[in-house]
Amino acid sequence: MQDLTLVMAQLDPLVGDIPGNTDLAIETVREACIEHGADIVVLPELFLTGYPPEDLLFRPSMEKRLREARVRMAEKIARDVLVIVGYPGRREGKLYNLAGLLYNGEWQEEYAKQALPNYQVFDEQRYFSPGQETLVFKHKGVRLGILICEDIWEDAPVAQARKAGADILITLNASPYHQDKPAERLRLLAGRAEQVKCPLVYVNQIGGQDDLVFDGGSAVVDAKGQLKVQAPYWQVGLMPAQFIKTKKGWEPRAGEVEPEVDPEESLYCALVTGLRDYVNKSGFKGVVLGLSGGIDSALSLAIAVDALGPQRVQAVMMPYHYTSEISKEDAAKQAKMLGVHYEVLPIAPIVEAFDDTLAESFAGTPRDTTEENLQSRVRGTLLMAISNKKGVMVLTTGNKSEMAVGYATLYGDMVGGYNALKDVYKTWVYRLAKWRNTQEPAIPERVIERPPSAELAAGQQDSDSLPPYDTLDAILSRYIEGDMSAEAIIDAGFDRDDVYQVVKLVDRSEYKRRQAPIGVRVTPRGFGRDRRYPIVNGWQPGE
Amino acid sequence: MQDLTLVMAQLDPLVGDIPGNTDLAIETVREACIEHGADIVVLPELFLTGYPPEDLLFRPSMEKRLREARVRMAEKIARDVLVIVGYPGRREGKLYNLAGLLYNGEWQEEYAKQALPNYQVFDEQRYFSPGQETLVFKHKGVRLGILICEDIWEDAPVAQARKAGADILITLNASPYHQDKPAERLRLLAGRAEQVKCPLVYVNQIGGQDDLVFDGGSAVVDAKGQLKVQAPYWQVGLMPAQFIKTKKGWEPRAGEVEPEVDPEESLYCALVTGLRDYVNKSGFKGVVLGLSGGIDSALSLAIAVDALGPQRVQAVMMPYHYTSEISKEDAAKQAKMLGVHYEVLPIAPIVEAFDDTLAESFAGTPRDTTEENLQSRVRGTLLMAISNKKGVMVLTTGNKSEMAVGYATLYGDMVGGYNALKDVYKTWVYRLAKWRNTQEPAIPERVIERPPSAELAAGQQDSDSLPPYDTLDAILSRYIEGDMSAEAIIDAGFDRDDVYQVVKLVDRSEYKRRQAPIGVRVTPRGFGRDRRYPIVNGWQPGE
Repeated sequence: MQDLTLVMAQLDPLVGDIPGNTDLAIETVREACIEHGADIVVLPELFLTGYPPEDLLFRPSMEKRLREARVRMAEKIARDVLVIVGYPGRREGKLYNLAGLLYNGEWQEEYAKQALPNYQVFDEQRYFSPGQETLVFKHKGVRLGILICEDIWEDAPVAQARKAGADILITLNASPYHQDKPAERLRLLAGRAEQVKCPLVYVNQIGGQDDLVFDGGSAVVDAKGQLKVQAPYWQVGLMPAQFIKTKKGWEPRAGEVEPEVDPEESLYCALVTGLRDYVNKSGFKGVVLGLSGGIDSALSLAIAVDALGPQRVQAVMMPYHYTSEISKEDAAKQAKMLGVHYEVLPIAPIVEAFDDTLAESFAGTPRDTTEENLQSRVRGTLLMAISNKKGVMVLTTGNKSEMAVGYATLYGDMVGGYNALKDVYKTWVYRLAKWRNTQEPAIPERVIERPPSAELAAGQQDSDSLPPYDTLDAILSRYIEGDMSAEAIIDAGFDRDDVYQVVKLVDRSEYKRRQAPIGVRVTPRGFGRDRRYPIVNGWQPGE
Repeated sequence: MQDLTLVMAQLDPLVGDIPGNTDLAIETVREACIEHGADIVVLPELFLTGYPPEDLLFRPSMEKRLREARVRMAEKIARDVLVIVGYPGRREGKLYNLAGLLYNGEWQEEYAKQALPNYQVFDEQRYFSPGQETLVFKHKGVRLGILICEDIWEDAPVAQARKAGADILITLNASPYHQDKPAERLRLLAGRAEQVKCPLVYVNQIGGQDDLVFDGGSAVVDAKGQLKVQAPYWQVGLMPAQFIKTKKGWEPRAGEVEPEVDPEESLYCALVTGLRDYVNKSGFKGVVLGLSGGIDSALSLAIAVDALGPQRVQAVMMPYHYTSEISKEDAAKQAKMLGVHYEVLPIAPIVEAFDDTLAESFAGTPRDTTEENLQSRVRGTLLMAISNKKGVMVLTTGNKSEMAVGYATLYGDMVGGYNALKDVYKTWVYRLAKWRNTQEPAIPERVIERPPSAELAAGQQDSDSLPPYDTLDAILSRYIEGDMSAEAIIDAGFDRDDVYQVVKLVDRSEYKRRQAPIGVRVTPRGFGRDRRYPIVNGWQPGE
């Protein structure tokens, strides 16, 4: 009985580092051959540049560097294995998103991606022309239908490849994670395979790139849509899949299948992966964050320690008159629990120096949010001084609920290079904190239980100026991810004043979000390239 | 002899404000009829939403609001005039960028834009499907070929409209300004008209929208490519053009033609317009800026006063040990020259409070840029306190050369809502300052003549850490606008060390630019949506 070993290479490229990614490809293929006896090795979409390469695609030597990379791959992988790898390439002046097929030291064929996503976070039509042709490549008696990512989210490319005789469909992907995406993706794969009655191989990348994070989950489904092999989520690695030729055609043998991951774990892994890759790929020694005794910074600290280890994380408590004793106790306790460097820098003398300097200018005006923002900016400036002096990145700790309504201080608590919680709603911050503590205690329980407060004024609580977080988040997710209007949200059962307050705050805070640090996108609509709203905006909420 | 009066309506819409833009359209048509006896009134591209509406196009009531707007226009303009206006619209589930033709209270026809730009600052393929059909509309015996903006930058749509019998080509535009764009645009219009031997009407909008600024310059060229009528740049208004029917066809009569504007004046107007519209459309009372005695803040102050008037502008000098006497003198002198509110807030007590607080943490470490950044951040925090307390926006004053190489402090001199000089190279800052003083003195001459310094350390000059600005800017413009590689710039005659230093600084500073305030884009490649580079980036400069 004829059989075939296909290895799915679930790798983490570095965008722009063509020589490094090429080395990784060569090493990976060698390992796939030695460890797994691979007949075919499949790498992710645009692997040689990393995804997304963005405007690096306009660099004049991009083509030359890729040509050299492919020459080197051909020299180093001159053996009996078919390698399928993604990279951009130009033909007759037009740029395409390609999958190249290398066998025995010779590049055989190239497939050009037909469906180019230009929505959500994707700008592929900025760079690429759509391919017009199906590619079915015959190798060792099996006809491989080659597809790239978005191709399988549309009907035509899959149907055409099958019609052209494909025995197995192979898709190279760079498919970013968001909550519920793993399940959505598996449904898609199963549906497509069943639709065209053909097994399907799906290879995805791993890792963080700026605000995107890739979860892997590379998989093989059979012609009935049954999941037969699946690589682990959130892990780099090689996953072999065996195909055997039966009377019905080529069928995948049942192999390892990753058990379903619960949504908290999946999201937590996304945040850890995004932060780790940002810090490591940027070459930072570590991170520093302001630990306030509140839940956002507490969860951020746990994520940072899980991503980088305690030696690379430091925490600073910066108390003022409004900082409660339990905040100071809990911050110190958590720093000790997690074994991170911890210091306390009281900000009162600095705040007073600002107050004195501004006294004449502000004479006769009442205290207002100016003074609250000032506390926050003093803290931000202290963190940046530590960052500058010690070469560590400031980790920003605000959550999506805050970023949505602008409940954050520009140049204050918004300072930093990266924000692990940027796209995490406050209600999910609580869920994640609780979940993390079920693994091993990392956050003092009191931090999770006490009512949230920014502690910028006496007795202040978040609920003084905002609806409770479960209400707030329910309105926000309908408005932001659901694209519902204010009136539609009210019709769904929410209080009119709450809805208009929240929606107006979201619209009005666009200028703050534009200056916010990037962070891991984990919802179907993160703030950033995913949601492109004008700052100057005369749109009035309503229907 | 048959004749026809066409009025070009060069207007400044507010993005998202459909009712307001509709009112403006109705009022404009009335005025065009009364003042100019218009047979045809042409308004800009996507006028009813403003350009670019971005993701507001996904708002659920967008279509309903536009439908209501068009019903209202039809009711209010039920007269003998053909109105041509741009708006988005959906057909069979797909969204198009349309030009609607209204006559005598009835909507007659719609044309869908065929060429959708998805490069530089444009993302039209994110929203729109391309139109597939030419529209030639016969009105009072003249056949009007309707086109929208990018359509005339490509060959096919123009040629097809002419082939379909157009006597006059009419294009609705939202064509953003950059340096040299007015001349480039006139060359295009002349070339297209001559190519197809047909007069061409070009209507552009005016005003600022976030980082884009529109210069107007609406024009009529005849079938030989001769400019016959041109509206002023940088001014809202109606410009009539007469067409007469001759044996050769419909010809435009010579009318008013705007004299060519010199490049300094054009650029200066762009900066004033961008800032004025940002501040006014956002509803700020005014602006505050830090006046350092240097040329960037001095030019910014002049621009702010020209945009908003002296009553809406305030300046703050924040001296420290390294601030020279001439800086203090010149700042005070300029504030007095321009009649703006001026105050002096010395920062030494605040800096000392920070130093004391950080003393233990920084014990044993040498002074470095940390201390320089700290001064800058204390100033930024003071400006933001004034902004918060007084409801004025902080105007950021850094130039493009600085933003390119990261010679600016995040949360320090980079604070603010808007930056008029963001896309202006330092050498152009000097040119503009000199030009502005030829109109009426606005900047003390000594500010222009002294060597530039950030004054963050004793005796510091910009040239200590960067090549001289004429060299720096020449390298930067080749790298950024020219997309040249480091080696190609060296081949063009620049010093190897300078080039690699500059190029590496540009690549490494992307994270700072992501958190920078927006500002007027005035080059063919501004920082922002125009140049989409990854922050995490393994690309090595070279060829």
